[in-house]
Amino acid sequence: MYEEYVQLLQKAADINNAAAVLGWDQETYMPPKGAAFRGRQLATLASLSHELVTSPRMSELLAQLRTDKGLDELQKANVLRSNEDHDKNSKLPPAFVEELSLLTSECFNAWIEARRQNDFGIFAPSLTKMVALKRRQAELYGYKAHPYDALVDEYEPGANVAMLDRLFDGIKQQLPPILATIKAAPQVNDDLFYRHYPRQQQWDFSVAVLKTMGYDMEAGRQDISEHPFSTSFAPTDVRVTTRVDEHNYASLLWSTIHEGGHALYEQGLPEEQYGLPLGAAASLGIHESQSRLWENCVGRSEAFWQYFYPQLQAVFPQQLADVTATDLYKACNKVEPSLIRTEADEVTYHFHVLIRYEIEKQLIEGTLQVADLPAAWNEAYQKYLGITPPDHKTGVLQDVHWSHGSFGYFPTYTLGSFYAAQFYIKAQEAIPTLLTDIAAGKTSDLLAWLRTNIHRHGRRYYSDELCELVTGKRLDPTYFLNYIKQKYTGIYGVRF
Amino acid sequence: MYEEYVQLLQKAADINNAAAVLGWDQETYMPPKGAAFRGRQLATLASLSHELVTSPRMSELLAQLRTDKGLDELQKANVLRSNEDHDKNSKLPPAFVEELSLLTSECFNAWIEARRQNDFGIFAPSLTKMVALKRRQAELYGYKAHPYDALVDEYEPGANVAMLDRLFDGIKQQLPPILATIKAAPQVNDDLFYRHYPRQQQWDFSVAVLKTMGYDMEAGRQDISEHPFSTSFAPTDVRVTTRVDEHNYASLLWSTIHEGGHALYEQGLPEEQYGLPLGAAASLGIHESQSRLWENCVGRSEAFWQYFYPQLQAVFPQQLADVTATDLYKACNKVEPSLIRTEADEVTYHFHVLIRYEIEKQLIEGTLQVADLPAAWNEAYQKYLGITPPDHKTGVLQDVHWSHGSFGYFPTYTLGSFYAAQFYIKAQEAIPTLLTDIAAGKTSDLLAWLRTNIHRHGRRYYSDELCELVTGKRLDPTYFLNYIKQKYTGIYGVRF
Repeated sequence: MYEEYVQLLQKAADINNAAAVLGWDQETYMPPKGAAFRGRQLATLASLSHELVTSPRMSELLAQLRTDKGLDELQKANVLRSNEDHDKNSKLPPAFVEELSLLTSECFNAWIEARRQNDFGIFAPSLTKMVALKRRQAELYGYKAHPYDALVDEYEPGANVAMLDRLFDGIKQQLPPILATIKAAPQVNDDLFYRHYPRQQQWDFSVAVLKTMGYDMEAGRQDISEHPFSTSFAPTDVRVTTRVDEHNYASLLWSTIHEGGHALYEQGLPEEQYGLPLGAAASLGIHESQSRLWENCVGRSEAFWQYFYPQLQAVFPQQLADVTATDLYKACNKVEPSLIRTEADEVTYHFHVLIRYEIEKQLIEGTLQVADLPAAWNEAYQKYLGITPPDHKTGVLQDVHWSHGSFGYFPTYTLGSFYAAQFYIKAQEAIPTLLTDIAAGKTSDLLAWLRTNIHRHGRRYYSDELCELVTGKRLDPTYFLNYIKQKYTGIYGVRF
Repeated sequence: MYEEYVQLLQKAADINNAAAVLGWDQETYMPPKGAAFRGRQLATLASLSHELVTSPRMSELLAQLRTDKGLDELQKANVLRSNEDHDKNSKLPPAFVEELSLLTSECFNAWIEARRQNDFGIFAPSLTKMVALKRRQAELYGYKAHPYDALVDEYEPGANVAMLDRLFDGIKQQLPPILATIKAAPQVNDDLFYRHYPRQQQWDFSVAVLKTMGYDMEAGRQDISEHPFSTSFAPTDVRVTTRVDEHNYASLLWSTIHEGGHALYEQGLPEEQYGLPLGAAASLGIHESQSRLWENCVGRSEAFWQYFYPQLQAVFPQQLADVTATDLYKACNKVEPSLIRTEADEVTYHFHVLIRYEIEKQLIEGTLQVADLPAAWNEAYQKYLGITPPDHKTGVLQDVHWSHGSFGYFPTYTLGSFYAAQFYIKAQEAIPTLLTDIAAGKTSDLLAWLRTNIHRHGRRYYSDELCELVTGKRLDPTYFLNYIKQKYTGIYGVRF
């Protein structure tokens, strides 16, 4: 019976992974006129997969396996997670799922058009409907304390408002004085990133970085897309994308390392658990911890550039003639309040997330109306970052998430950074030579440690359980704050 | 009810087209380790699509629609073809379909390995099983005169041994004297193709050719693969692939034009018939007629090079310094018996097909055993082309088709050339300025004529009905023979 359950789930995984290939192609190579039929092909695959996992047969199997005494530990863990998924899925009536799917298309198109015309009014009517639908979804799922709990749980099982409030309260108290201290110090110059870096050399260097990280190019590849992303079709085929701007080297470099971190996680999931919960990532927060650990803790470290800077300078001798390794290290850690979340530094980034978290909570509890959203947005940016967007495109319309109905997603970005810092401290304890290894271009022990401690478990543990298992402690923002303080003390010559 | 039938078929089409995307990726971008999971993803999609089109609901719908008086002509045509497909599909028990699918994988892998080791013995056991299975398939389908009829009908509905024997008897009588005459004349030199042509310039020129042909680059794209092919995910997304050999310009050029011809057909199928028989190509023979018409009748014509030669020479001034347009025209029509079918000229090509046709017929009727196949192969090559393969890789193991179980496929290549010649004569009658148009780089009227007369019909007509509708006559090899004689009279200065 377990075997049949596995077969059904793997069949659904085949369909979902096929859809992922279609999605990857859509963002990388699909010609423009292919969009309409691609949309219906993706919709068909989604409904087929949904039919399978919510089929009466799957319900029967899960009900029986729930009490099956003959399963081993891993099998039990799969069945447990599948039952959780199934319970959650079955709370949404098919009519609701269809309504949400249709509204998502409408809302996404409205967002695209609103961005194009820089006009929030175009987005507002669909977004209003979306907020109403997500509020209904929270009621359907059910919750104990706050409707937002039901939504965030989809992305980060076990997370809730009580826990996130604590986390973000800490940020609100601790980060502003850090930011103020940095702003008062002599500023870092990052002009070097905006010189002319020819496309092909940028590309080749980024591939070299991916390989050094341990990304298996026989089980993946890098392509160009408008927005960088990573996607997996199996642990043996995990792809990353990036973009190249000849006058902004930072654009390619950090997205390569970031997506590479995500991809290493997917390549490290156990093949033999293909299609099963234990073959999937633990949560979005843990996923983001992997990308941020590589991007920030490793990629923006002095050790990393000790190894890579001579190589980079050899590729771009003219552009970097007047630049030292330390200049580069400082430049890639420049702190400065800015409008765009995805381009923010490691400190101000969390204000971006905080702002979205506070707004989302209010929208879902009904204390903020969509009509008042742009004003609330601008006010929050002034309050936390001291800047005001000149338009909606660089303000409230910048992120796609709300148009997808992804309320509860943003907090996982901050969770990811915090988990990353906590994991990274632990990794340094476990691998005493880690920093000198990285300075010598050797990250294999780090990757092996991540594989053993995080990747191979799949969804076996909730994020906070996993964190405790790996680090001996539940998530504790102190690790992140200490990491930040230590890093910027060196860079800005300040004391916190 | 017709609506429900359409929905079911379009859902199956979505799945098949998704599988086509996965197949395209497999041949173009997939990293090597992705192969195993990709295999199972494709198998899952294939079985899902098969379940849909053979579902009890589909049988009911087709049975009722068969006698529905309320359908219009196009709807009737769809229902007729779907019933034919359904009758054929239902003759194969699921166990047989599964056995064939499993054997196909085994046989394909054996063929790959046999080729690698240049050892027919590695392929023979699987191929023996395959021939036995195809003989059983012919029995399951049923036939009137010859078991091969049942198999060829899958690729070319309506074709059969009686008709093909007539066709190939004509070839056996008419082509040898033509070939002998050409061989006796002073030979054409095609060295110019084998100079050094840098990759990027080759590529850019091939894209320019595709655009001139009318291939819509907004609804398609060209990529690199080991074996050139074209594939369609919808009429709005039809892709071609090619390969680049810097020391064999012919390799890229002809495959681009050939696959471009296939792709123009797919781009010309009616969008509103997506997923239905009238939205699909008429047959493999008609499909091949489109690729050969563009590759041979247009692409290897004097008019074509009148337009393109100055452009080509501008791109490759050094390589072509001593070459005239006439040299190039002659070079690309050089006739010479050779071992590899896919590289053969327009005359000797049909001996390659004839040899496979004769062998297939004997294998399927049981008068030739797989063990005797290599000897039969070499004997036939000596008999018809006067050459003997030095090894099996360039002999009996060169083509993939038999490993796929595709017996009855090869004749469609010759049918395609013959249809192409007959269509092309008709197109010249309909567009009196066609040759001067082509010489001026204008092929839009030709494409419009193909769209109106062939593409837009989809599978409405059988190939021979379509041929009669378009040209006023059933397929008549005289058109091809006259085309060949006229062409080579000019090139070799001979009389036939």
